[in-house]
Amino acid sequence: MNTIMIYLPIAMAFIGLAFMFAKRQWVLKQDPGDGKMKEISDYIYEGAIAFLKAEYRLLTFFVIGASAVLAGISFIVPTTHILIVVAFVFGAFFSALAGNMGMKIATKTNVRTTQAARTSLPQALKVSFGGGTVMGLGVAGLAVLGLTTFFIAFFHFFMNGVWTSTADMTIVLETLAGFSLGAESIALFARVGGGIYTKAADVGADLVGKVEAGIPEDDPRNPATIADNVGDNVGDVAGMGADLFGSYVATVLAAMVLGNYVIKDMGGNIQDAFGGIGPILLPMAIAGFGILFSIIGTLLVKITDENAKEAQVQKALNIGNWASIILTAVACFFLVQYMLPETMKMDFFGEGTKEISSMRVFYATIVGLVVGAVISSVTEYYTGLGTKPVMAIVQKSSTGAGTNVIAGLATGMISTFPTVLLFAAAIWTSYAFAGFYGVALAASAMMATTAMQLAIDAFGPISDNAGGIAEMSELPKEVRMRTDILDSVGNTTAATGKGFAIASAALTSLALFAAYVTFTGIDGINIFKAPVLAMLFVGGMIPVVFSALAMNSVGKAAMDMVYEVRRQFREIPGIMEGTAKPEYAKCVDISTKAALREMMLPGILTIGFPIAVVLLGKLVYADNNQLIAEMLGGYMAGVTVSGVLWAVFQNNAGGAWDNAKKSFEAGVMINGEMTYKGSDAHKAAVTGDTVGDPFKDTSGPSMNILIKLTCLIGLVIAPILGEGSDTIITEPVTTQSSSKEVSIEKSNIDGKATATVITIINGKREVQNFEGTDVEVQAKIDALK
Amino acid sequence: MNTIMIYLPIAMAFIGLAFMFAKRQWVLKQDPGDGKMKEISDYIYEGAIAFLKAEYRLLTFFVIGASAVLAGISFIVPTTHILIVVAFVFGAFFSALAGNMGMKIATKTNVRTTQAARTSLPQALKVSFGGGTVMGLGVAGLAVLGLTTFFIAFFHFFMNGVWTSTADMTIVLETLAGFSLGAESIALFARVGGGIYTKAADVGADLVGKVEAGIPEDDPRNPATIADNVGDNVGDVAGMGADLFGSYVATVLAAMVLGNYVIKDMGGNIQDAFGGIGPILLPMAIAGFGILFSIIGTLLVKITDENAKEAQVQKALNIGNWASIILTAVACFFLVQYMLPETMKMDFFGEGTKEISSMRVFYATIVGLVVGAVISSVTEYYTGLGTKPVMAIVQKSSTGAGTNVIAGLATGMISTFPTVLLFAAAIWTSYAFAGFYGVALAASAMMATTAMQLAIDAFGPISDNAGGIAEMSELPKEVRMRTDILDSVGNTTAATGKGFAIASAALTSLALFAAYVTFTGIDGINIFKAPVLAMLFVGGMIPVVFSALAMNSVGKAAMDMVYEVRRQFREIPGIMEGTAKPEYAKCVDISTKAALREMMLPGILTIGFPIAVVLLGKLVYADNNQLIAEMLGGYMAGVTVSGVLWAVFQNNAGGAWDNAKKSFEAGVMINGEMTYKGSDAHKAAVTGDTVGDPFKDTSGPSMNILIKLTCLIGLVIAPILGEGSDTIITEPVTTQSSSKEVSIEKSNIDGKATATVITIINGKREVQNFEGTDVEVQAKIDALK
Repeated sequence: MNTIMIYLPIAMAFIGLAFMFAKRQWVLKQDPGDGKMKEISDYIYEGAIAFLKAEYRLLTFFVIGASAVLAGISFIVPTTHILIVVAFVFGAFFSALAGNMGMKIATKTNVRTTQAARTSLPQALKVSFGGGTVMGLGVAGLAVLGLTTFFIAFFHFFMNGVWTSTADMTIVLETLAGFSLGAESIALFARVGGGIYTKAADVGADLVGKVEAGIPEDDPRNPATIADNVGDNVGDVAGMGADLFGSYVATVLAAMVLGNYVIKDMGGNIQDAFGGIGPILLPMAIAGFGILFSIIGTLLVKITDENAKEAQVQKALNIGNWASIILTAVACFFLVQYMLPETMKMDFFGEGTKEISSMRVFYATIVGLVVGAVISSVTEYYTGLGTKPVMAIVQKSSTGAGTNVIAGLATGMISTFPTVLLFAAAIWTSYAFAGFYGVALAASAMMATTAMQLAIDAFGPISDNAGGIAEMSELPKEVRMRTDILDSVGNTTAATGKGFAIASAALTSLALFAAYVTFTGIDGINIFKAPVLAMLFVGGMIPVVFSALAMNSVGKAAMDMVYEVRRQFREIPGIMEGTAKPEYAKCVDISTKAALREMMLPGILTIGFPIAVVLLGKLVYADNNQLIAEMLGGYMAGVTVSGVLWAVFQNNAGGAWDNAKKSFEAGVMINGEMTYKGSDAHKAAVTGDTVGDPFKDTSGPSMNILIKLTCLIGLVIAPILGEGSDTIITEPVTTQSSSKEVSIEKSNIDGKATATVITIINGKREVQNFEGTDVEVQAKIDALK
Repeated sequence: MNTIMIYLPIAMAFIGLAFMFAKRQWVLKQDPGDGKMKEISDYIYEGAIAFLKAEYRLLTFFVIGASAVLAGISFIVPTTHILIVVAFVFGAFFSALAGNMGMKIATKTNVRTTQAARTSLPQALKVSFGGGTVMGLGVAGLAVLGLTTFFIAFFHFFMNGVWTSTADMTIVLETLAGFSLGAESIALFARVGGGIYTKAADVGADLVGKVEAGIPEDDPRNPATIADNVGDNVGDVAGMGADLFGSYVATVLAAMVLGNYVIKDMGGNIQDAFGGIGPILLPMAIAGFGILFSIIGTLLVKITDENAKEAQVQKALNIGNWASIILTAVACFFLVQYMLPETMKMDFFGEGTKEISSMRVFYATIVGLVVGAVISSVTEYYTGLGTKPVMAIVQKSSTGAGTNVIAGLATGMISTFPTVLLFAAAIWTSYAFAGFYGVALAASAMMATTAMQLAIDAFGPISDNAGGIAEMSELPKEVRMRTDILDSVGNTTAATGKGFAIASAALTSLALFAAYVTFTGIDGINIFKAPVLAMLFVGGMIPVVFSALAMNSVGKAAMDMVYEVRRQFREIPGIMEGTAKPEYAKCVDISTKAALREMMLPGILTIGFPIAVVLLGKLVYADNNQLIAEMLGGYMAGVTVSGVLWAVFQNNAGGAWDNAKKSFEAGVMINGEMTYKGSDAHKAAVTGDTVGDPFKDTSGPSMNILIKLTCLIGLVIAPILGEGSDTIITEPVTTQSSSKEVSIEKSNIDGKATATVITIINGKREVQNFEGTDVEVQAKIDALK
């Protein structure tokens, strides 16, 4: 039984990856069209590959550097093992691989969607959503595969594959945190770098092409047009993929860490059918089943009506989405009952130890699923076409750009109200049900259908690209009409997807935050200590400054692009006449370099500040690790609270401005008059959208990475600051014929010491418990040695 | 000795008020000019009075309602005394009185400044700064007078004027908190209502007058022009005055609360020359001396050069400012040594009890003075004319309103970096020097020169008004030139004054926060408890939503004004030809009503949410006051951290946009070309300024009130949640010939109970101490009864 449940997630990951490969083959077999279509598509594909190559070059340096630092830490800190470096490298590699596969399939699917749209809408949806499915399953499959494999490997390496003690399992999970850190580091590059790239290319292409040269959008004579189309994939596909990959891995990891502490609260030992690690395996099992249900969900997404409109397409997506969510809920019900002890003891800070039935853990997972669904509606309400807040922005456009901007800002700000209340309620209720383990499992359940969410999310930019290709290739009008229907639905799913990503980042960070506190063994984070309060302030400021840096970066990178496009128009004769080809690759290169260069400073801010907090703490309170750990915890809380606020504010303001501008395309009624594109009100709305672009595509989404990465760095630093339970691991003693391993966990609370000594000889496990004063217990341990 | 030091602040307050009256008489004796000048000035004065009247009507209802609630609380909660209602009413009254005096003198001084400017600049400065001085001394004098008087009254009422125990003094200070709450409630009306008023009048006047009717600014034919000028006084004079009045009182109060706990940490009893309450009297003494030094500072502000420019005026102000700051520092040095025990014991959470020399308290006051000075430079750097960040916004104006807005937002956001680091450093260092008592005294020292700060601050809008009157009265060009010099300096001092107000609000809130924790007797605020963390999130969201509501309120109020102005143009024939007078009072009335109506929702949010948090907590954790107190503490911390960030962000972004726009008046170099008013770049800068106006004049400054009022409400609620020390006050027993009062303080920690029973009969005091188990001690107490 034991071995089946631990290997089950791997099996499901393989099923997911197999399905992905089959889908991929099917998509690639579709007709990529002819002549100009294929040519444009190839340019986009090559541009994407060029970005990936440059990114990987930079990543290689980063991974080597970060590995060296991690290796250094593992040598200095006895509780950190060198294997964390291996996990880190693989986490980075898997995340990059998932992004790579997603980008490639997205840039191959776009033209095939265009071609399919020549025949019918159902076929076009099938192809574009097929590409999205490949992306989604690739991310989810690789995440589960990597995390589970490393867990099993470390579980065997450190514990010989049998439960010994919470302390040992902590080392396994601390080392596993490297995988998550690696994945999130890549997300930093993909989300922030991608966000800068896509907006720099967009703004650069528009500024010189549309404004200066007077040629329409997506015109092949514009040297930056390919970079612009590549940008859609870099930002919306690869960036979102890496973001959710990171959330997915981090959430499951945090839930495992907290599961380990559930076992600790129950006396350090439970008897179940899973070798005593049921609470630790549960989140992985949920993730595994989530892949299966996502596959089922994707299979349900189809339309048959040749004349279908947005509503039918949206309905098809909704059916698939809800099917996967409901199946996950059902699975959680059975898995929780199957894998967890019927009642568990959990320690609630300030409320004492409580008996928790496993059903309460199930309720917590339901909280997570509800949050995932509700957040999408909330986001949709504040940013959707025709909603009250968006129409209010439209109305305010009539009195100029200033009032439009104020209305957009206010909408984004007010949207934090229901969102934060929802998050706060989710934290509180899932905690009330099952402690921080409940919070982490709520996040895990929400993230279980990541594959489905990403499929829905990635099909949008694919359809957007498909429409662009149709336009550039001058295909018949009905083709563009069909891709426009998909694109329009894609805009909605993009907005709700961003809401989902924020919710996932918020819950993930909270789970990581809880894991951090248990890792360090501190009693909590008391903000009535001034240094902790000071760090709460500093942490709160970081997302604000990060956002500003990201916004400024877009401006600078866009200027690089502007200069390059101007240079090409000047130095390559015949571009405007269509007799000479612009150097698309140069623009892609410029945008790539600028994006990667400009993300350095925000990146350093993200990684450097938590480290600076610890160093400063060490400088002032050299002997008080407890206080330093609290300071870092205060910093993490500040970043999380402020980061979530700024993410919601920026994403929703940006989304609302965008759709306020789009409202003018079909015409809007302002002061009793129909107003269209080209009017003064529309111009005001365009100004709002200009402000909103970096908000929703660069700085806003970057907040997700900032808060998760901050909490992960905290988690990796945690062992350095740990001192709550005085844990000693003796060196494994190996003789010629047998392997003997002794682990001792000792804790000393309120003068009462307890110790668990576990001896494993040839896989045979013996447990001894001691209790008494510190001196008594130590004497007994010494006697054993 | 005792009696001198306790009455000294009152004496100094009287000196301040006497000086104020003298100055007021002098200002009023100045020539108010003739004819048109006087007429316009009268309109502004009457408009201001109309606003005040309407405000006071609303205030009366509010004060009655809030008093009823407070009275209800004092009946239900035995530790809250009914006298808190009296203190509350007087706090509100004193704050309103100070605002009233300030508004009146400001609207009387403006025309006298114009008249003085007809002769010379030194004379104009003397008059306008004289008006500012009246305002500053009025606020500071009334604040110190009210607070000290009530302290002495309560000290005698509850303790017969002699030290008994920390518990008794806590009751004195809890009751005194009513005074602070009253003052801050008025600040809510003045700052938020005033902020909405000033921008609504401004936008309304511009929109119909400038844009629709095509008449210049400050044209007497515009019905809203008087409302616009009244607005400058309502927002910048009365709003700022009430804000600083509130900070001033709250800071001193918080420092007294923490001083009381210093005595507790030292064993509940100290021997000094001040009846054992030196640490409690110190903040009042510093405030008292601050008034004297502010007077000296104001006397140093003068110029003699008839041809002086901005630099000389600024220098004169700086000399006065620095003189008062340095004198305060010197006074702190002596006062700290004189009034505090040479060494004190203080409890540092997580670090144990430390011996603190009184000199360390002095260092903490220096931290506060330094913060007050540095914050002004930081604000000046991000918002001043010609600074790097402002010039960057100017450059970005050339590519349109969108890039201008992004640049302004980014500037405001980045300005949180040094500001927050400064605050964090201030919290940490002043705490490291002398615990939270140090933090509170840092704030007290910073606020000591409030009179001087306000004088510098209020002279700006007075000069601005003076310039407007000169323009409207068509006075010779050199008059306007002279007032423009003062106005220009006033713009700088307005920006730095806002920085000072934020810093004061931040430090005040922290001091109140610390006082709250000690009042409730909880062990700290542990954000690792999920309900506390959830409330941290909710608290963080409130300033964002509050800001959005305030911004939207400006929009709605402005529209009311627009409709009224349009109505007058339509229904009163001859306005445009100058043959008929517009109904100025109607516009003032509309703006007043709209402002007071629109501030309801943000006001309810501010007052309602802390109460909702407690009610929710009571609903879920009926028996766990400790946890509810922590939840409220988490909420307060969230509001404070997020509120400070949004205050800095909005004030500095708004200030930077404003000066970016103003830069075009003298012309700026953009891409090698001189660019002036009327250019496209200037239009883009005007858009940015439109966004920035509610930022810097409405929502930004409101944050100060939001965070202080939240913490004050927490402080007033605190006794309801207190359970750390189980305090029982028996009803005073009065016989015909004598008054007998018994106070019992009982605490029960770790199973060991201690009780202090103090019986006062006819002023004779008897103290009995008991120790033992809870049952034993209770039996002894019962026996006494």
